[in-house]
Amino acid sequence: LSLSLSLLPGCYEEYSSSSSSTSRAAGMNGNGPSKLVDPLEDPVPGLGTYEDFNTIDWVREKSKDRDRHREITKKSRQSTVALLHSVSDAFSGWLLMLLVGLMSGALAGGIDIAAHWLTDMKDGVCLIGFWFNHEHCCWTSNETTFQERDRCPQWQSWGELITGTSEGAFAYVVNYLMYILWALLFSFLAVILVRAFAPYACGSGIPEIKTILSGFIIRGYLGKWTLIIKTITLVLAVSSGLSLGKEGPLVHVACCCANILCHLFTKYRKNEAKRREVLSAAAAVGVSVAFGAPIGGVLFSLEEVSYYFPLKTLWRSFFAALVAAFTLRSINPFGNSRLVLFYVEFHAPWHLVELAPFILLGIFGGLWGALFIRANIAWCKIRKSTRLGHYPVIEVLVVAALTALVAYPNSYTRMSGAELISELFNDCSLLDSSQLCGYKQVHLADRPAGEGLYTALWQLALALVFKMMITVITFGMKVPSGLFIPSMLAYYNHDSFIFKGWCSPGADCITPGLYAMVGAAACLGGVTRMTVSLVVIMFELTGGLEYIVPLMAATMTSKWVADAFGREGIYEAHIRLNGYPFLEPKEEFDHSSLAVDVMRPRRSDPALAVLTQDGMTVGEVEALVESTHYSGFPVVVSPESQRLVGFVLRRDLLISIDNARKRQEGVVSASTVVFTEHALAQAADAPPPLRLRGIMDLSPFTVTDHTPMDITVDIFRKLGLRQCLVTHNGRLLGIITKKDILKHMAQIANRDPDSILFN
Amino acid sequence: LSLSLSLLPGCYEEYSSSSSSTSRAAGMNGNGPSKLVDPLEDPVPGLGTYEDFNTIDWVREKSKDRDRHREITKKSRQSTVALLHSVSDAFSGWLLMLLVGLMSGALAGGIDIAAHWLTDMKDGVCLIGFWFNHEHCCWTSNETTFQERDRCPQWQSWGELITGTSEGAFAYVVNYLMYILWALLFSFLAVILVRAFAPYACGSGIPEIKTILSGFIIRGYLGKWTLIIKTITLVLAVSSGLSLGKEGPLVHVACCCANILCHLFTKYRKNEAKRREVLSAAAAVGVSVAFGAPIGGVLFSLEEVSYYFPLKTLWRSFFAALVAAFTLRSINPFGNSRLVLFYVEFHAPWHLVELAPFILLGIFGGLWGALFIRANIAWCKIRKSTRLGHYPVIEVLVVAALTALVAYPNSYTRMSGAELISELFNDCSLLDSSQLCGYKQVHLADRPAGEGLYTALWQLALALVFKMMITVITFGMKVPSGLFIPSMLAYYNHDSFIFKGWCSPGADCITPGLYAMVGAAACLGGVTRMTVSLVVIMFELTGGLEYIVPLMAATMTSKWVADAFGREGIYEAHIRLNGYPFLEPKEEFDHSSLAVDVMRPRRSDPALAVLTQDGMTVGEVEALVESTHYSGFPVVVSPESQRLVGFVLRRDLLISIDNARKRQEGVVSASTVVFTEHALAQAADAPPPLRLRGIMDLSPFTVTDHTPMDITVDIFRKLGLRQCLVTHNGRLLGIITKKDILKHMAQIANRDPDSILFN
Repeated sequence: LSLSLSLLPGCYEEYSSSSSSTSRAAGMNGNGPSKLVDPLEDPVPGLGTYEDFNTIDWVREKSKDRDRHREITKKSRQSTVALLHSVSDAFSGWLLMLLVGLMSGALAGGIDIAAHWLTDMKDGVCLIGFWFNHEHCCWTSNETTFQERDRCPQWQSWGELITGTSEGAFAYVVNYLMYILWALLFSFLAVILVRAFAPYACGSGIPEIKTILSGFIIRGYLGKWTLIIKTITLVLAVSSGLSLGKEGPLVHVACCCANILCHLFTKYRKNEAKRREVLSAAAAVGVSVAFGAPIGGVLFSLEEVSYYFPLKTLWRSFFAALVAAFTLRSINPFGNSRLVLFYVEFHAPWHLVELAPFILLGIFGGLWGALFIRANIAWCKIRKSTRLGHYPVIEVLVVAALTALVAYPNSYTRMSGAELISELFNDCSLLDSSQLCGYKQVHLADRPAGEGLYTALWQLALALVFKMMITVITFGMKVPSGLFIPSMLAYYNHDSFIFKGWCSPGADCITPGLYAMVGAAACLGGVTRMTVSLVVIMFELTGGLEYIVPLMAATMTSKWVADAFGREGIYEAHIRLNGYPFLEPKEEFDHSSLAVDVMRPRRSDPALAVLTQDGMTVGEVEALVESTHYSGFPVVVSPESQRLVGFVLRRDLLISIDNARKRQEGVVSASTVVFTEHALAQAADAPPPLRLRGIMDLSPFTVTDHTPMDITVDIFRKLGLRQCLVTHNGRLLGIITKKDILKHMAQIANRDPDSILFN
Repeated sequence: LSLSLSLLPGCYEEYSSSSSSTSRAAGMNGNGPSKLVDPLEDPVPGLGTYEDFNTIDWVREKSKDRDRHREITKKSRQSTVALLHSVSDAFSGWLLMLLVGLMSGALAGGIDIAAHWLTDMKDGVCLIGFWFNHEHCCWTSNETTFQERDRCPQWQSWGELITGTSEGAFAYVVNYLMYILWALLFSFLAVILVRAFAPYACGSGIPEIKTILSGFIIRGYLGKWTLIIKTITLVLAVSSGLSLGKEGPLVHVACCCANILCHLFTKYRKNEAKRREVLSAAAAVGVSVAFGAPIGGVLFSLEEVSYYFPLKTLWRSFFAALVAAFTLRSINPFGNSRLVLFYVEFHAPWHLVELAPFILLGIFGGLWGALFIRANIAWCKIRKSTRLGHYPVIEVLVVAALTALVAYPNSYTRMSGAELISELFNDCSLLDSSQLCGYKQVHLADRPAGEGLYTALWQLALALVFKMMITVITFGMKVPSGLFIPSMLAYYNHDSFIFKGWCSPGADCITPGLYAMVGAAACLGGVTRMTVSLVVIMFELTGGLEYIVPLMAATMTSKWVADAFGREGIYEAHIRLNGYPFLEPKEEFDHSSLAVDVMRPRRSDPALAVLTQDGMTVGEVEALVESTHYSGFPVVVSPESQRLVGFVLRRDLLISIDNARKRQEGVVSASTVVFTEHALAQAADAPPPLRLRGIMDLSPFTVTDHTPMDITVDIFRKLGLRQCLVTHNGRLLGIITKKDILKHMAQIANRDPDSILFN
């Protein structure tokens, strides 16, 4: 068990080893055709596919797709049916995007409504029907006025319902207890559902999606079971009051939708590279519905999660993101018909002097980001290495209980994250009914600071400290958890206080909402290291085009400060923690090693295992494959010359030999395996040769032994290679795989090279 | 002369052959150090640099920069000075961006102010001082009221000044004549200045910048003379009333600024790849100042012009674009303190039914785009092939006179493009003083359509037809000319008319400004084939976040429709017209040829010219280089084995041999040229060998002869290769250059492969 534990990543350690639970999910079943045989048919099943926890070969996949496209174009000239097929094929990408947008938008709307309802359920119940949430309950009531729209007799808190009065200590205690009980129930359900049905549904999902987009295969991670369970448990987890957001998980949900919808179209079902283009767009859709920010979503996908993002994908993601945002708007979960989640009404100009506090906010956000990442990673390591990891259900229950216990007395932690943010972002007006300013009149700068202001500030400061601490523990637990909203909560509320004295003569010279917004952006920037996409998301989120510069200054500072403490964002840190084979595209390879230093075999190792193009028998080949664990073998002209002919994948080789033994007459262990175009003349009594040129990659990538590793890493990144052969003066010398590179990079950074687990 | 004419691109045929005019401009002087000798010193001048009209090797340049960076990091541990140097080196990129933003913003502001002044000069003069423009003149006057702010006694039209009255036919004729005279004067000055000082200053510049960013070298294209002349002539050309915009040229101006400022920093001066990163950001800056759209600018650079756009560049371009936009705002050339050029006040929701006319607008825009590109290219070909091309000054004067003659009587063509657009985009209100609705009350849907409406519509329709025709002729003339604004003018104004009957019962159900906006986007989309960036520019330009979906629908339709008639946008069409070696990143290579079909030598050609690693003398090498025109030679172990060792560039080879003959003792024609690490034992009386391993690229890129060309093209694009060697079973077979690929693609598309001129 200890071996399987150390091998398996993230929050689903216990599951990946049992194949039953993963095979249940439909997942990424890359059942693609082999390019080299016939692009449209599939004579040997499984040829050209990948095993789980392996890296795809982008070049091969894209080439396969181009072959397919060429085939269709050629046929389209022959008949009308084929022409129609060709047209429908060309538009299938757009249709798929439309479907992804619609489905994700609808799901996001459903999640919002359900989470809203369950969150209110913690407080009380609607007497007209328990399926109404608080706001809705009072809408249906006629007795409510506009001013008191959230108070109506139909809605009763648990305390009121049980004790018969809404006043008094007893009612408060009952409310408190019910709050904790509901939180425990929701979180228990969430963790149990995840454990029982879809272990991959836990966590934020963004680290894994980044890894998948970079070409890794995790079967079932984006399957239908993951989708169903993640959707349900996300609602439960958010409603339970745990300090987590729904934004990261929504990206995961959108990617699941895209992956499932891909199965409707052959073009995407059978090609891992094409599917990843769709998934990149789906990531944009996820952010688009999470924040109502279509452009920000596209930039997020481009900047943060995608690996291969061609211009075509840019257009399509934008389209899908818009469709999703409009679907969500039609569902109208926020009760206002805006695309924008936290629409900000204020348009007061900011002053150049204010850049100083904005930059301070940036520094604070950067420090917080660096600290958060360290603390969270340290906590996750503790969870991984100690006995804590064996009791995920208890862990979740304890954290949920603790969160509810501490959160309830403070009204700012009691309300949901989104509510709190919208309260903080909004400027106060006289008509405003929010607690923060409507009744207390505290945040308007031209009013004397009353008692209420100090209470509010004190509560906010407590809320800040508490949210910070609890989020460190919560992120990475075995329930769906996002990070965006909690990070935003780490806003900075003291400035309005400090500046109050300075500003009292003038009216309205400080906009506290703006500070909250900038602070949120700075903290989020420090944690995720997003820049442009974050600024765009923030201004789409709030509709405040005027505040680009403050947001920009804060996020830039935040990123710089956080980078000074460590170059990785939270997602990269989690990818490394889980040992995924992810070649970070942002990080420059800054070492002067050469390809010869990284390639296998090393000087002390046995020679490279190669096949010869016509000198080996089936038995010899099988013995070679059995005795090694390599996933591919170079084919050379002869062992003496070591001149490279091609490259054969282990999986294809085994499947082909297996298939030939079963179906092809006369193939025995003594048959020669031939990779050349024309077989050599053989003795008359020899068994017929097994011709395998069809499965050989005739264009393997090569670099010379003197190629600097920075160039090699660049080639791997840009072309999405799986392996690359190393030659010296035209002779084959060795092989470099993605894993070799990652191990080499870990070694340079003085980390354990064995932390890279898969390839 | 006819040879040089056919060889030289675009609007500066007559100049490129005379080196004197190009050498005057500082230009892109890629005086980089050779990576292989010492990254920080430059022992043999010119080693590792490129000749004019050649393609850079991205891999080599980036590797050079990484070597430099490594060197600095290593040294920074040794002393405090070196540490400071390292820090300043790290921040020099940001500093450079800041400077580019400031300089471009300032220049753009200056251009706006000057163009405004000169445009008003065509109409009349300010009596207080001729340096005041119309608006400014009346500001300084106290006698003007708010309502009549553009009428004051201090400003006199030419007719008024000469005839003494502003009424009557005589005054009108005088005004008309002065208008034409000024237009002729401005355009004459513009074309003469371009011809005399900076031939590269003509045209839009975007096709050339795209080519330069893809790795081509055109010395002087971004030099200081080009900058100065382009700035001046842009003002003149815009003021002359020619149907051209300042947007494309502003991108060119910003790129010139960036290129000149690059000379301040060694990091960017000496590295062609790093410089191109800065230029990509500068393209974003150009659009940012042209439209006040920083995010749109970044997306424009990403989608439309850039070739290599790493994430680092994304952040930096965003930063530079913001700085530039703010510099421009501080200069405040538009008289309102907004970032936005055409701020749209209306926020009326649009109806789902309206999507139909929006899509119609898209179809119209797409048709117009396709038509425009065909007509413009045909016109440019006529100009190139007939005697018309020999008289550029006369051509410009005739077009300017024609434009002024036709434009003056129609008030919509008389006003400048930007004015017209802002009038069209804006909704009418009762207080509006614009001609289109303030006095005539014509465009409000709930008012009866008066006489004025029909006049206005009739004038607009005429303006549309005229602008369309004249723009075809104007774009590509020998003056700075942009395309954006003229395209936008091709708006679609009839819908407000058609829908009037349908809408009369309800008030304000149609927003004519919105239709103008969508129509402008559709036309621009059809011409340039931009999508996301265009939508973002439009909504930043107008501040209308609500109208993303109409804009999106129109641009998408427009792109699809236009693509059906031809896949190239106007910039790509001009690149092809000029024969630049540009490998379009958007177009898929869709043919099943193999590397062996494209490589040189062909079967009938003589064998590949190769060097051997230790078997040739200096004399033999020189003879080989002399007898061929290749820009590089592979080095092999021996002619028999054809096993590849490395690759040497012709330029480096010649410079090194030349240098060695001059400075190195005993190097004569009989000396052996040695590319191996250790020289072979030689006869005692033999001259000392010339060791050239240092200039050899030890890691040349190779593909096998069976590599499909789609993969090869992908490798060329993604890695930015210049050439690639082709091997078969480990033996060198041939070479593929970027030009070979472009010729092959031209052949497939049934075009003349000799239209690709440079490499």
